[in-house]
Amino acid sequence: MYEQKRIPDYGVKIGRLNTGSLNAITDVAGVTVGHVTLSDQDIQTGVTAILPHQGNIFKEKLIAASHVINGFGKTIGTIQINELGTLETPIVLTNTASVGKAADALIADTMKQNPEIGRTTGTVNPAIGECNDMFLNDIHAQAVQKEHVLEALQHTAAEFEEGAVGAGRGMLCYSLKGGIGSASRLMDFDHGVYTMGVLVLTNFGMLSDLRVNGNPVGQELKQALLDSWEQKDKGSVMVIVATDLPVSERQLNRILKRSVTGLSRTGAIIGHGSGDIVLGFSTATKIPHDKPAQPLTIPTIHEEDIDTAFRAIGEATEEAVLNSLVTAEHVTGRNGNERPAFKDLLEQFSIKLT
Amino acid sequence: MYEQKRIPDYGVKIGRLNTGSLNAITDVAGVTVGHVTLSDQDIQTGVTAILPHQGNIFKEKLIAASHVINGFGKTIGTIQINELGTLETPIVLTNTASVGKAADALIADTMKQNPEIGRTTGTVNPAIGECNDMFLNDIHAQAVQKEHVLEALQHTAAEFEEGAVGAGRGMLCYSLKGGIGSASRLMDFDHGVYTMGVLVLTNFGMLSDLRVNGNPVGQELKQALLDSWEQKDKGSVMVIVATDLPVSERQLNRILKRSVTGLSRTGAIIGHGSGDIVLGFSTATKIPHDKPAQPLTIPTIHEEDIDTAFRAIGEATEEAVLNSLVTAEHVTGRNGNERPAFKDLLEQFSIKLT
Amino acid sequence: MYEQKRIPDYGVKIGRLNTGSLNAITDVAGVTVGHVTLSDQDIQTGVTAILPHQGNIFKEKLIAASHVINGFGKTIGTIQINELGTLETPIVLTNTASVGKAADALIADTMKQNPEIGRTTGTVNPAIGECNDMFLNDIHAQAVQKEHVLEALQHTAAEFEEGAVGAGRGMLCYSLKGGIGSASRLMDFDHGVYTMGVLVLTNFGMLSDLRVNGNPVGQELKQALLDSWEQKDKGSVMVIVATDLPVSERQLNRILKRSVTGLSRTGAIIGHGSGDIVLGFSTATKIPHDKPAQPLTIPTIHEEDIDTAFRAIGEATEEAVLNSLVTAEHVTGRNGNERPAFKDLLEQFSIKLT
Amino acid sequence: MYEQKRIPDYGVKIGRLNTGSLNAITDVAGVTVGHVTLSDQDIQTGVTAILPHQGNIFKEKLIAASHVINGFGKTIGTIQINELGTLETPIVLTNTASVGKAADALIADTMKQNPEIGRTTGTVNPAIGECNDMFLNDIHAQAVQKEHVLEALQHTAAEFEEGAVGAGRGMLCYSLKGGIGSASRLMDFDHGVYTMGVLVLTNFGMLSDLRVNGNPVGQELKQALLDSWEQKDKGSVMVIVATDLPVSERQLNRILKRSVTGLSRTGAIIGHGSGDIVLGFSTATKIPHDKPAQPLTIPTIHEEDIDTAFRAIGEATEEAVLNSLVTAEHVTGRNGNERPAFKDLLEQFSIKLT
Repeated sequence: MYEQKRIPDYGVKIGRLNTGSLNAITDVAGVTVGHVTLSDQDIQTGVTAILPHQGNIFKEKLIAASHVINGFGKTIGTIQINELGTLETPIVLTNTASVGKAADALIADTMKQNPEIGRTTGTVNPAIGECNDMFLNDIHAQAVQKEHVLEALQHTAAEFEEGAVGAGRGMLCYSLKGGIGSASRLMDFDHGVYTMGVLVLTNFGMLSDLRVNGNPVGQELKQALLDSWEQKDKGSVMVIVATDLPVSERQLNRILKRSVTGLSRTGAIIGHGSGDIVLGFSTATKIPHDKPAQPLTIPTIHEEDIDTAFRAIGEATEEAVLNSLVTAEHVTGRNGNERPAFKDLLEQFSIKLT
Repeated sequence: MYEQKRIPDYGVKIGRLNTGSLNAITDVAGVTVGHVTLSDQDIQTGVTAILPHQGNIFKEKLIAASHVINGFGKTIGTIQINELGTLETPIVLTNTASVGKAADALIADTMKQNPEIGRTTGTVNPAIGECNDMFLNDIHAQAVQKEHVLEALQHTAAEFEEGAVGAGRGMLCYSLKGGIGSASRLMDFDHGVYTMGVLVLTNFGMLSDLRVNGNPVGQELKQALLDSWEQKDKGSVMVIVATDLPVSERQLNRILKRSVTGLSRTGAIIGHGSGDIVLGFSTATKIPHDKPAQPLTIPTIHEEDIDTAFRAIGEATEEAVLNSLVTAEHVTGRNGNERPAFKDLLEQFSIKLT
Repeated sequence: MYEQKRIPDYGVKIGRLNTGSLNAITDVAGVTVGHVTLSDQDIQTGVTAILPHQGNIFKEKLIAASHVINGFGKTIGTIQINELGTLETPIVLTNTASVGKAADALIADTMKQNPEIGRTTGTVNPAIGECNDMFLNDIHAQAVQKEHVLEALQHTAAEFEEGAVGAGRGMLCYSLKGGIGSASRLMDFDHGVYTMGVLVLTNFGMLSDLRVNGNPVGQELKQALLDSWEQKDKGSVMVIVATDLPVSERQLNRILKRSVTGLSRTGAIIGHGSGDIVLGFSTATKIPHDKPAQPLTIPTIHEEDIDTAFRAIGEATEEAVLNSLVTAEHVTGRNGNERPAFKDLLEQFSIKLT
Repeated sequence: MYEQKRIPDYGVKIGRLNTGSLNAITDVAGVTVGHVTLSDQDIQTGVTAILPHQGNIFKEKLIAASHVINGFGKTIGTIQINELGTLETPIVLTNTASVGKAADALIADTMKQNPEIGRTTGTVNPAIGECNDMFLNDIHAQAVQKEHVLEALQHTAAEFEEGAVGAGRGMLCYSLKGGIGSASRLMDFDHGVYTMGVLVLTNFGMLSDLRVNGNPVGQELKQALLDSWEQKDKGSVMVIVATDLPVSERQLNRILKRSVTGLSRTGAIIGHGSGDIVLGFSTATKIPHDKPAQPLTIPTIHEEDIDTAFRAIGEATEEAVLNSLVTAEHVTGRNGNERPAFKDLLEQFSIKLT
C-alpha cells in the first residue's frame, strides 16, 4: 500500500500464514479506511474511520464483538455491541479528549442517513475508539471537530497510509513514533479461503521491551539512543479486526481475545496506563435492522476450525504493530516534544531486523 | 423534597427498612443533584447531574462499579470504571443522542479544573448515562448543548425536583409520564448506620405490567384508559446508586446487581429495547489520584453484612421508580405526542394505591 | 403432572402468557426429568437429572448458556458452556457437598457411552448444579453415590414429581419446605409457537418476604406462625431453562438473565448466602461434535422477537418457584429439624392465595 | 530446587526482574507444594496440591481471583472465587477426568477439619484445576483416588520437583513432555519488596511454535525431529499465581490477565482445544470466615504501582513454562505412546538456548 516500506520489505516474516494482496484490513472485501490528519505545531492529531461495508450499516448490521484487554480507556459503544452482537456504524478512531465530539458527529451522521431513527425506530450506537496522544498533541485544544469526523467517513479507500496519519498522528509506540498499522492473513479451509484483517492504533510500550520477530531490537536501540528516550509504558492500543469468516459473535469474541498474543510477541506487558481495546466484525452475514418474517439463518464455522483464525489474528496483530512502527515518520509537536521514526534509527545505527 | 407528593404520601410503604431524612440519593452526605430542563414544543429533554462529593472528584476518586442489566444502551465510561474500580467525574444523565456532547462537555470541564490532565497526568473518564426520549422530544435536534451540561453541574443541591425534569423531561415509564425519581434506605449495623441512596431515570415498561407494592394498578388503569395508551416496552432505565457504606468495588457491584429486584417488583420484564444500566459509588473512601508513599488501606464490610445492603437497594430502587411516576406531570411534546401524569389518572379514576 | 395440586389449582394466574400442556420444563419436546430421593432420618437429599434431548448429547450438543445471579455457589461446568456455547451432558442437580461425586459419575457415564473420549477425541464437560440442604440433611455424610446419579439419569420422563423430591428433598424456600418446581409458557410468533420451560431447585428466601402474585402472604404467615420459623435468607436457587426457540447462545444468555424478574416477584432479595445460577439450552439446533464439511447454519430469531421470551421466562420462573412451595410436603430430617409444608399452613390458617 | 537443571542453568535470562531465592511459587512465604505421581504403564497421571498458607484456609481466607484465558476446561470453584474474591481451600491440580474425585476429596477434607461446616456455617468451595493427559494416560481408568488427593495435601513443602511429576506426569507441552514448572520475580517498591510466584501445569502448544526467549527453537527441533512428532495444539495450561503484594481482588485479576503475555512469548496461540485458566491469591491479608465487630481494613497498592506486578507475572509465567519443559523427563505411557524430554533433545541435536 501507498509505497511505504513495510515490515516484510525489511525481510521479516511474521508467522506462517499467507497475507492478503494488500496485507491490510482492507483485504476483507468491502472494508475501507480513511484518515484526516491535523498537523500544525501543538496540534498533532486526527481521525481514522473504518467502514465495515459499503452499504447502509445501520440497516444492514454486521455480527460484531469487543474485548477489553486493559480497560483504562474511553472507547464508546461496547455495551451495546456486547449485548446485541452487532455493529451498526463505522468505527471512528481519534484522540481521548475527542471521543465526545466523534460520538456526536457519528450519531448526527447516522440520523441524517437514516431519518427514521428517533421517529419510527430507536437510536444508534456509535463505535468510537481512542488513544491518548498528549505527548505530541495539545489535547486541551480538543482540536478534532465534527467536520473532521465526517470528512474521514466520506473519504475512505481500500488503500490507505500507515504511520503518523489520522488518529495515529500523535501516538507513540515503544517510546518511538507509532500510529496506524495494518496487516492481514489468509485462512485456508476445505470450505473456502477467508481473510483476517487487522488495523491497529498503537500508543504503548517501552523501548527496551520491543522485539521484532523475537529479536530484542529495543534493547539494542536503547543502548544506542541513550536511556533518555525511553518513556514509561502508557499501554494503549486499539485493535480493529475485520474478517469474512462466518462466525457467531461468541466465536468472534474468542478470536479477538487472541490479538494479545501478537501484542505480547512485540514485547508488550499490557501496561496499566491506558486502554487496550479490541473491536471486530464479520462481513459474512448482514443482520437486517428490520425484522423479517422468518428467523434468520446464520452461517458459522464449526468450532474445530477456529484455531486457524486464532493463529491468523495473532500474526496479523503482531505485524500490524510492527508496520505502525516502521512506517511512522519523525514528528515534532506540542511544546517541541518529538519522537523519532523507527526507520530512521534503523538506518542511523545500521540495525538489521533479520 | 420540593413539596412534591411522593409515594409514601400515598400511604404506600415499600419494604421494611427506614428511609433517610430526604428519602433521596442526597441523604448520602456530600451527594448533590442538579437539573437543566429544556421544554419548548418539540424539545422536551434536559440534563441531570449527580455530584458524588463536593471536592475535586478527579483528584479524590471514589470506589465505584457498574452493572449492565440490559446493554441496549449508550452509557459512556463503564469500561474504565470496571477496570479501575473508581469514579473520577460527576455522573451526567441526558438523552441518547446527546451523550457525545455531554461527554465532550464533561471532559472539557474536568480538564479546566485539572489543567495537569494531558500535561503531567493522563486523561479523564467521563461518566454519562442516557435514555431515549424520542416520543416526546425531537432527538434529531440534539438540543442539549455544552452550556446545559455545565449549568447542571454548577447548580446542584441536596434537595431537588423529581418527575418530568432534567434528563427526565421527555421520558416515559409504564406508558405514562416518567422521569427522575429517588429514594433512600438506612442500613443499621453494630458498627454504624449507613445510607443507600438511589436516583433513577425511568423510561421503561408497559402500562399493564405496572404494580405498586404488589398491587396490579397498571391493569386497572389500562382498562380505564383504553388500550391505546399502552406502548411497547422500551425497557430503558438508568439507576444511580450512592452509599456511604465502606465497600470494595466487588461488593458494590454485587449490591448494584440487586437493583433489578426493585425494578422487577414494579412489574418490569427488563425489555429488549434499550439500556438498563446501574452506576454506583461509595463515599466511604477517597482514592487519591496521586500515589502516596504507602499502600492504601480500604475499609470494607465483612461479606456477612451485605444482605442488608441488598435489601436496601431493592427497596430504594422500587420506591425511586414509583416516585418518578407519581411526581411526573403531564407533558405534550414532539409532534403533539403526549403522556399523562400518573397522579392525574389516579385522581381521575379514583384509584387507590393501598 | 402427578396429581399434585399446583399453583393454578389455587386459582392463581401468574402473568399473561399461556402454559404448555404439562406446565413444566418437559413441555419442550425431548426434555425429560428424573429423581432419586434419599430419605432416611438424617439423610434427606437426592439427585434430579434433566435430559435435554433423548439422543447422544455429547455427539449432538445443544446451544447453551449460563448466568450467575449470585455466585456463592459450586455449580460445575459453566466455564466451558460460556466459552463454547454448548451443553454436552445432561444437567444433574444435587446437594452442595455432593457435586464432586455427581461430576465424577457424569464423566464416567459419558465416557462409557462415548468410548472415543480420551482416545480419539477430547474430554467431556459435566454440568452439575447444587443447593445446600444442610438444615434437613447431614451433608457430612456425602450420602449421594455414583449409582444414585446414574439411576436418576436412567429413569427420566416427561411427567415428574415436584416438591420435596430428588435434589429438592432437603431444601427450604422462604423458610418453608421448598424443592423442585416447574412451569412453562408458550410464545406465539408469526413464524410459529414455541415453548419456554423452567425447572427450579429452590432453597432461598425469608418467610416475611414471600409474595404470591403480589400478595404478601409471607407476612401473614409469619404473624400466624410466630417469628421463630423464619430463617435467615440463604439465597440459593438453581434455575434450569429449556426452550425450542431458535436462539444464539448470546440471545439465550439474555433470556436467562430475565429469570431474576420472576424470582424477585416472589419476594427474593437475591441474598448473599448461596448460589443463584441459571443454566439453559435450546433444542432448536443440534451442534455436531464432529466437524462437518461445510459451516453450520444456525437458525436464530431476530432480536425484535425476544421480548416475548423475556416475558415467558419471568412468568415461568415465578410460577415454578411457587409450584415448588405448594407441592412440597412437610419434612423432618437431620437432628429432628423440620420444615412445614406451605400447603398445610394455607389450610391450617385458612389463607387464600387469590 | 531439587537439583533439576532449570532454564537459568541453560544461560537463559527471561526479562529483567530478579528472581526469589527458589525461583518458585514457594518464594511467597507460607506457600507449599506437594505431588502424588501415578506411573504404571497406561496410568501416567497424578495430583499436585498448592497450599496458600499453613493455617486453616477456610477460617482465614485469602483475597483471590481467577481469569479464563480459554474456557475449554473443567476447572472447579471459580464462580464463587469471582463472586466473593476469596480462596478458602488449597488448590488441587489433576487430570480432567478426575476433577470430580478431587473436588469430593477436598470437600470432605475441609469438612473434617472444620466440622462446623454444614452445621453452624455453610459449605466450602473447592478449587480444582486440570489439564487433559489422555495421550500418555488412560483417563477412562479415573485412576486418581481420594487418598491420592489427601496425600498430596498432606505432604507439601517449599522445595518441590518440576517436570513429569504430580498432575504434570502425563502432560505434553509444545508436542514435547511438559508438566509442572515454576518461577518467581521480586517486585521492588518504595514501601517494600514483594514476590510474584507462578506455578504452571503445561499441556499446550505445537512444537514449531516454541520460542525460548525469542529464539525459534521449536522450528529448529521440528526440522531435526521430523514432523511426525508434532501434534495439534491442545492449548491447555493452568497458571497458579501467588503473591504477597497487598492487592484487591480487582487488582489481582488485572495481574492474572497478564500471564498471557508470558505464554505468548513462548509461542502460544492460545489454541481452542482445552482450558487455559489462571487462579491466584495474595497472602497479604487474611479475610476471617467469622464476621468481626468492625469492618475490615484491606491494604492495597495504589494503582500506579501495578505495572511492576504486570511485568513480574509475564516474566514468571514465561519462565515457569520453560522450566516445565527443561525439567520434564521422557515418559512412555498409554498404549506405548511416548513424548521426548526437551533436555534430551537439546543434547542430542546440540541445540543451544542462548
